[in-house]
Amino acid sequence: MREARVAVIGATGAVGSVTMRILRERGFENVRAFASARSAGSVLADGAVVEEATPDALAAGEIDIALFSVGTQASRELVPHAVRGGAVAIDKSSAYRLEPGIPLVVPEVNGDRVADHEGILANPNCCTIPLTCVLKPLHEAAGLRAVRVSTYQAVSGKGAARAEQLRREPVEQHDVGFDWTWEGAETDEESKIRAESQKVLELPALPISATTVRVPVLVGHAEAVWVELEEELTPEQAETVLGEAPSLRLVDTPTPAASARTDEVLVGRVRRDPAAENGLVLFLACDNLNKGAALNAVQIAERVLDTAWRPLTSA
Amino acid sequence: MREARVAVIGATGAVGSVTMRILRERGFENVRAFASARSAGSVLADGAVVEEATPDALAAGEIDIALFSVGTQASRELVPHAVRGGAVAIDKSSAYRLEPGIPLVVPEVNGDRVADHEGILANPNCCTIPLTCVLKPLHEAAGLRAVRVSTYQAVSGKGAARAEQLRREPVEQHDVGFDWTWEGAETDEESKIRAESQKVLELPALPISATTVRVPVLVGHAEAVWVELEEELTPEQAETVLGEAPSLRLVDTPTPAASARTDEVLVGRVRRDPAAENGLVLFLACDNLNKGAALNAVQIAERVLDTAWRPLTSA
Repeated sequence: MREARVAVIGATGAVGSVTMRILRERGFENVRAFASARSAGSVLADGAVVEEATPDALAAGEIDIALFSVGTQASRELVPHAVRGGAVAIDKSSAYRLEPGIPLVVPEVNGDRVADHEGILANPNCCTIPLTCVLKPLHEAAGLRAVRVSTYQAVSGKGAARAEQLRREPVEQHDVGFDWTWEGAETDEESKIRAESQKVLELPALPISATTVRVPVLVGHAEAVWVELEEELTPEQAETVLGEAPSLRLVDTPTPAASARTDEVLVGRVRRDPAAENGLVLFLACDNLNKGAALNAVQIAERVLDTAWRPLTSA
Repeated sequence: MREARVAVIGATGAVGSVTMRILRERGFENVRAFASARSAGSVLADGAVVEEATPDALAAGEIDIALFSVGTQASRELVPHAVRGGAVAIDKSSAYRLEPGIPLVVPEVNGDRVADHEGILANPNCCTIPLTCVLKPLHEAAGLRAVRVSTYQAVSGKGAARAEQLRREPVEQHDVGFDWTWEGAETDEESKIRAESQKVLELPALPISATTVRVPVLVGHAEAVWVELEEELTPEQAETVLGEAPSLRLVDTPTPAASARTDEVLVGRVRRDPAAENGLVLFLACDNLNKGAALNAVQIAERVLDTAWRPLTSA
């Protein structure tokens, strides 16, 4: 598996550079870095020389796994070429997430779905990944009836340039706001959390209400979550369930700073919601560049290589 | 009314200095500034010389309205002396808020309660004030059944020293967290929002679930709010109701920065909550030092002077 030929497309970006680091740390030996023409030729921290992500280069049949960390439009343009060349594409943009037939995967939640791919697998939104990691074990224990979530999202989720802007702006300008595209009364981020969580959890009718908010923090997304359950689950029982679930770490006070550079989703502050019969409130934090994006995609790649590995023919 | 003898106790603090400014702006002509021995003798921006807030000075019978912006412990010690001297004390700490018989007042919500005082009136928590301003008109229109709220609170709510710390810390240290006292699984801030809102709204059994979070912003508290109503209210109807309510300003995107130095509570992003039958989601922002604290207390003073004015006898 570690010998698989892996390509990172968008390797110089905020998530792409974390992906490069994670692949090295997890023992991948055969990793190439791709980016736009502007970055081609530059040398990364680990010595990799960046290649230009042209359709021909991606379709040349020399890639087994192509990890895309580019914008939605660029993904739509480039992913098909990698697939045409025989690669399995794992896409971090929203281009393919909700497309029927394309698996949207959080390995801990619906990892079996990797077997269903026809060349493309999609990586969920940075809020959906930790949220579904927390919701899945609660659903298995007591049945989800409704979910409400408000987010505290780091600016690095908006890209390296936005993080640099936060570094430079006076603290007096720090604000809390909604820097997404609007779709009527909701942001597209709020729609994504609902639709993607429903798909990942395979609960297409689960009511989910999200308010997504950007806060002046560099790394780490946090979420305040209310769940209504079919059956009673005490806060203590919920803590036991969450403490035993994969990729979760139960802590007293999950915060973005504590989540930075950790692989797990931090979860805690579990208590009763007095406003619902079987309601719980909790708080989670997750490194939005790591498990919220790059690590999840690498884990999908590992799952693909373990469960669906087959020799790929060169084009 | 403008001739009333007003004392601001804690006049050099974050909220006290805003209180001094607001009193000037609203035409109060007879304002004295009090603070601890450490600040006594210093001269404020407006020329007022700070007097020491000793029990004797406060009980001397020369104050009609005493606005306290000191800590809970200091309020417990000093407020009774001002009352003994014949003043009406308006206290911004949590010392008296939940005490039976002491009115806890948001003038727009339960202003009639000022008439019930026996010397002390309490000013609610900085999150409770804007929340109840928004909840009251919704309750009158369709009946409140349950409320969930997650907050985005500015560091100035924690005092001037905490604001100065934010100014100085590197942006890499900016975090989102819970810097309150814990009462079991909840912070005291979360308990306060529930208990104070129930008292102000005069709905002692209303289920309210709060998650209170500090964010790295200097001024302006924001709140993501879910309400369940007895009767249906469309988002459009709710906007009409909120737009006509006192002290609210309907905007597309309420943010802390937009709320800073404004008197009104900004409210918007009203939409359906798919997780409840008659559920709405909305977002609000409010200057935590202004309407969230100092202005509300001054408005209580104005209400006391208008509705319950009587000549006070010197001690």
